[in-house]
Amino acid sequence: MAEKRLQEFYDEISEDLTRCVQFWLTHSHDNKYGGFFNCLDENGTVYDDTKHIWLQARQVWMYAKLYNEEEKFTTQAVLQAAEKGAEFLMKFAKDASTGRCYLILTRDGRPIKMQRTIFSECFYTMAMSEMAKATKQALYKTEAVQMMDRLIHWVREDDTDIRLGRPPLAGEARSESLAVPMMLQCVTHELLTLDPSLGARYRDIQEWSVQKALSHVQRDGTVVLENVSTSGTELPGSLGRLMIPGHAIEAGWFLLRYAKQNGQDELAQKAIDQFMNGPFARGWDDECGGLYYFLDADRYSPVQLEWNMKMWWVHTETMVAFLMAYQHTRDGDHLDTFARVYDYCYSKHVDKKRGEWFGYLNRDGSVSMRFKGGPWKGCFHVPRSLLYCKQMLSELLKRPTLT
Amino acid sequence: MAEKRLQEFYDEISEDLTRCVQFWLTHSHDNKYGGFFNCLDENGTVYDDTKHIWLQARQVWMYAKLYNEEEKFTTQAVLQAAEKGAEFLMKFAKDASTGRCYLILTRDGRPIKMQRTIFSECFYTMAMSEMAKATKQALYKTEAVQMMDRLIHWVREDDTDIRLGRPPLAGEARSESLAVPMMLQCVTHELLTLDPSLGARYRDIQEWSVQKALSHVQRDGTVVLENVSTSGTELPGSLGRLMIPGHAIEAGWFLLRYAKQNGQDELAQKAIDQFMNGPFARGWDDECGGLYYFLDADRYSPVQLEWNMKMWWVHTETMVAFLMAYQHTRDGDHLDTFARVYDYCYSKHVDKKRGEWFGYLNRDGSVSMRFKGGPWKGCFHVPRSLLYCKQMLSELLKRPTLT
Repeated sequence: MAEKRLQEFYDEISEDLTRCVQFWLTHSHDNKYGGFFNCLDENGTVYDDTKHIWLQARQVWMYAKLYNEEEKFTTQAVLQAAEKGAEFLMKFAKDASTGRCYLILTRDGRPIKMQRTIFSECFYTMAMSEMAKATKQALYKTEAVQMMDRLIHWVREDDTDIRLGRPPLAGEARSESLAVPMMLQCVTHELLTLDPSLGARYRDIQEWSVQKALSHVQRDGTVVLENVSTSGTELPGSLGRLMIPGHAIEAGWFLLRYAKQNGQDELAQKAIDQFMNGPFARGWDDECGGLYYFLDADRYSPVQLEWNMKMWWVHTETMVAFLMAYQHTRDGDHLDTFARVYDYCYSKHVDKKRGEWFGYLNRDGSVSMRFKGGPWKGCFHVPRSLLYCKQMLSELLKRPTLT
Repeated sequence: MAEKRLQEFYDEISEDLTRCVQFWLTHSHDNKYGGFFNCLDENGTVYDDTKHIWLQARQVWMYAKLYNEEEKFTTQAVLQAAEKGAEFLMKFAKDASTGRCYLILTRDGRPIKMQRTIFSECFYTMAMSEMAKATKQALYKTEAVQMMDRLIHWVREDDTDIRLGRPPLAGEARSESLAVPMMLQCVTHELLTLDPSLGARYRDIQEWSVQKALSHVQRDGTVVLENVSTSGTELPGSLGRLMIPGHAIEAGWFLLRYAKQNGQDELAQKAIDQFMNGPFARGWDDECGGLYYFLDADRYSPVQLEWNMKMWWVHTETMVAFLMAYQHTRDGDHLDTFARVYDYCYSKHVDKKRGEWFGYLNRDGSVSMRFKGGPWKGCFHVPRSLLYCKQMLSELLKRPTLT
């Protein structure tokens, strides 16, 4: 019966969004070298000045998004910070010879590591796309579209650059991760909100991403497996049985958003049933609350040491997913699930005193790592979720029923 | 006042050693392809048939060691299992062009992954060395000595093969991990017990390893840092502040053993004070018991998600270290520390019903992952520690005082 709480959710989330963004505006800007400090202790102290490209690019995207859509942050200060971050990225993130993006840089922009995945490049594209929207400058759009072209080439034609030139070893499983189609779904969505006329250009990759994502639904629709074979079948061993409920649920809202935009009712239903409801039921920890990070489909112990930790991004994405499902269906069960996760987050993850969430909780919900930003946590999942939830709640408060 | 418990320790540990080895003898042999299944559930069920080279080689070493030194396992069955494991390694573990060893193989020996470290090669060398002792066959000794030559070349002359041909990126910290000198210390010790006449050949690398290990003692001797610069100074950021108490303590007993063998009293004292006592005091969790896995020297949250987990190998190595320190000094405090860790292990890690230890505990000591073998846990730390402790306890029971 969470319908009565819509205003409470809206108020609390609005306040939290402001507090969270303020945290990053206050503590993360590197005024000397540009870009952002992304390793920030609970109170904002910089404990490491390494710059992680996923997080640099996501923060640029987030600032530009806030500038574009959230009145309180439609300010020159926010726009300028986004521009300085984008400048740092364009100058240092890319390897000149391949156009690939690094994973980690030193504070002053020298490369430390490149990963054999496409995610740095995906976040780079998102950042440039949202900057194009914020500034109307052609430069950013060109950067975004060029990188998207490369991404499509790497994923569908030739992954030599992604593999850093190393051919696969003879026993390597040709496995496909759910993360790849999810991300391509998300990035093309961004580009189409920038310029709907790109629709024809990206139609193929969008439909390919949907089909690839659906191939992770296995065992008669009862599980979403993180890794499947290139022909869409279950892989042997722990790799094949791995489930990441938070990932499936995040893919769920990407798919639901796409289905709604394209009037694909059947896909919308699958997104809700198979990517949200199923993984939520399987992933929720009845004893301690919160969603597990990793699970094994045959209920062996997962081999990932952090399997039972409760992660902020899992919960932020689940909030978006179930609120979107509720918005689409007005089925009160979805809002109740949203409320369950909301209550978990606002009693465990949220730091009302200093802003931003504690990201990494032990199974029992106590804080394991007290920092607000780290090598894999930046200014992204929390403010993105809060912004989207605020926007949906605002709509719901205006139109309490579907009719 | 743990002196009164020596017989109890001896009896319990002897029984546990038998139970543990029996677990691997019963469940881990791959009679079809050779080598060992190393992913075993709590009751021995194989949940993944991937073969991890560290664990394959360590199990060969362990079986040969037991055959050589523990009467109960001086059997043809144990020797043959070791030989079949060694055969699998010699056939499949190495890359023909560089002589490097892979990290992971498929069940039938096809390579899945090679790592940019020397550890597969170190364990390969240990396995071959102990097999040479068990069988007196020249083949194994040749394999061990050749691989050791390569290791010295890679570590001291040219690491191109280890880096898989990739030159360092411009911002990469030239950091040195404690693990490298520790392992070289350990591997050369093995080769010298096989053939003491190799002493001259390995004197340089042994002394180099001691000096490199000592360079990790920082901040006026108060901490052992896992990573330091190539010139032996503290590195910036989380990487530089990282402490792994279990690693330092394990290095401690390697150093103490070396110091005792070479009559280096000052080094023995440093091994005990700086590598054992210091890291134990800093690493012990006063609230829940057990040693933390990772810590930050400035008391920030470590960035490793598993930082507060309690790991079997940390505790097995701490048992060996403090029993060795007691054997060397007869200082009752060391035996008390041994007893504290022993009591922790025998109430949390040990599975008296089915054999082998639960390896991965949550901070509070509850079992996080129920398997006995996994991608990083095999037939090694538990039986090695139990064997060494049993041998030391046997000596202590015979010679209760130093005089």
